Amino acid sequence: MCAQYCISFADVEKAHVNIRDSVHLTPVLTSSILNQIAGRSLFFKCELFQKTGSFKIRGALNAIRGLISDTLEGKPKAVVTHSSGNHGQALTYAAKLEGIPAYIVVPQTAPNCKKLAIQAYGASIVYSEQSDESREKVTQRILQETEGILVHPNQEPAVIAGQGTIALEVLNQVPLVDAFVVPVGGGGMVAGIAITIKALKPSVKVYAAEPLNADDCYQSKMKGELTPNLHPPETIADGVRSSIGLNTWPIIRDLVDDVFTVTEDEIKYATQLVWERMKLLIEPTAGVGLAAVLSQHFQTVCPEVKNICIILSGGNVDLTSLNWVKQDERPAPYQTISV
Amino acid sequence: MCAQYCISFADVEKAHVNIRDSVHLTPVLTSSILNQIAGRSLFFKCELFQKTGSFKIRGALNAIRGLISDTLEGKPKAVVTHSSGNHGQALTYAAKLEGIPAYIVVPQTAPNCKKLAIQAYGASIVYSEQSDESREKVTQRILQETEGILVHPNQEPAVIAGQGTIALEVLNQVPLVDAFVVPVGGGGMVAGIAITIKALKPSVKVYAAEPLNADDCYQSKMKGELTPNLHPPETIADGVRSSIGLNTWPIIRDLVDDVFTVTEDEIKYATQLVWERMKLLIEPTAGVGLAAVLSQHFQTVCPEVKNICIILSGGNVDLTSLNWVKQDERPAPYQTISV
Repeated sequence: MCAQYCISFADVEKAHVNIRDSVHLTPVLTSSILNQIAGRSLFFKCELFQKTGSFKIRGALNAIRGLISDTLEGKPKAVVTHSSGNHGQALTYAAKLEGIPAYIVVPQTAPNCKKLAIQAYGASIVYSEQSDESREKVTQRILQETEGILVHPNQEPAVIAGQGTIALEVLNQVPLVDAFVVPVGGGGMVAGIAITIKALKPSVKVYAAEPLNADDCYQSKMKGELTPNLHPPETIADGVRSSIGLNTWPIIRDLVDDVFTVTEDEIKYATQLVWERMKLLIEPTAGVGLAAVLSQHFQTVCPEVKNICIILSGGNVDLTSLNWVKQDERPAPYQTISV
Repeated sequence: MCAQYCISFADVEKAHVNIRDSVHLTPVLTSSILNQIAGRSLFFKCELFQKTGSFKIRGALNAIRGLISDTLEGKPKAVVTHSSGNHGQALTYAAKLEGIPAYIVVPQTAPNCKKLAIQAYGASIVYSEQSDESREKVTQRILQETEGILVHPNQEPAVIAGQGTIALEVLNQVPLVDAFVVPVGGGGMVAGIAITIKALKPSVKVYAAEPLNADDCYQSKMKGELTPNLHPPETIADGVRSSIGLNTWPIIRDLVDDVFTVTEDEIKYATQLVWERMKLLIEPTAGVGLAAVLSQHFQTVCPEVKNICIILSGGNVDLTSLNWVKQDERPAPYQTISV
């Protein structure tokens, strides 16, 4: 498997040792009302409680600590990325832990709240134009000027291995789990989880879940070849707008059992369910997994799957943008959670 | 103590046995960033995860099970209350568990979402005019018609004893706790907790926290006599609009160490902190405790208190009413939670 894919299970095991002093073993929560609605037992892995508010710290910290042990002078001079979202925040936090400067390339047009968040995390913002070309060009310039190293949010092997540690934890926390449902953008998380699960317990299913508006993973699996989104997709699940890439595609092609797509309304409904029934403030991207499990398609194709782990990937939601929230017209009879 | 107050610690112990098969042992969560902000160690008792979304199920279920064992025919014919909030929902849920009809008296003018929630929980709604007199008159009529029993949301002794079980749990979960900060409306929760703490570990402080706009508990303690709010108070913390009453006052007078009042802005700020840093969807009433701990007054009078349990009383928030949420201008560097 080592030769075939960019990482092996041994890399996930190494990542686990590498980062466990600095990340949370996040809890797995359950809700009887959501079990009723889904008709299965759901186990929610709460990465919204993770440091920096998302699972991204796992991969970012593993990558940075890997760079440190690989660098002769002891430390890279800087780390650079062009994600202004959860990976950018995680990379900045991880870099700070290790005393390394971080540079985040952000389009001038990015929302102010994101710029403020990056600054608050202590990174330097570098502005680009909005086009991919400008972003790429500015990133290359900064890499040269700072002699820094680019940490790709989802194609960097050390990032993929870091995200895989989620599965290691869940197998211990929920030994009876028989499927994982994982939101997919660039595919770092689902690839890391698939490598881990298929090495340790291959009978457990690994399903990817993605917005219909950003369905490159689904299209790729259907066609049997990497098929990126043609245009920047429009979806409320802003954490999974990226396309899967050269490193995650072979793993997804071979080890992910199926891909489920969900509409924007399904994502909003699932997100609001988690808020109202579980009282967990997830970001809409984290609602994609539950949306998939509740979809008609999932109900018909996966009847044998009883105990499902859904990754609640993050909780960095802009509370001032909740104008889509609907008045609940039929609240369920009660809400329960257990740890 | 038994003669002096409406309940004794033995009643809390009985309540614990009485309800523990049907309520959650809710987790205690911590957040390193909130510890930094507060300059103390904070332990958040997550009653927002409780059945029905608030601590109220403890008292309601204890009261109903007490009624069952007290009633010769085996069960009361109905239970009645005029709380359309968390107590109403909890009482309905508890009544349903025990197969007893529940009637909730609600002003015709109550928000639609509350009416829908009560119906979804399976209770019968009975409408009154908006005045206290009309509400009282309708409640009396329903009690007669149904031969039902009124379960008062905060002055019923079995309710107070039920809420005290929170403190029993916390003393086991956080043995080093040296203070509780408890939102106070009618005072059922703070009275139950004070009875428990002062019986088991009297050195632990019990502080009440309430909105400045509904400061009857503070006024009562200052004057040394029960001093209800003169007018229905206006506060975003809608769960603590009630005044303390004849049963909770003597306990609060003697056993609650201090009362802290907080402004509406302080409540909003604290609530939003818990959402953004802890990713927990508390209702604003549950933010009152943290608001008190962060207040200037608390900082000056309680320097010796290091390990504080804050009760996050509930999570039944109307998400469509969040128009007061502010864009965060200086996000803290990171967010952490541990269980």
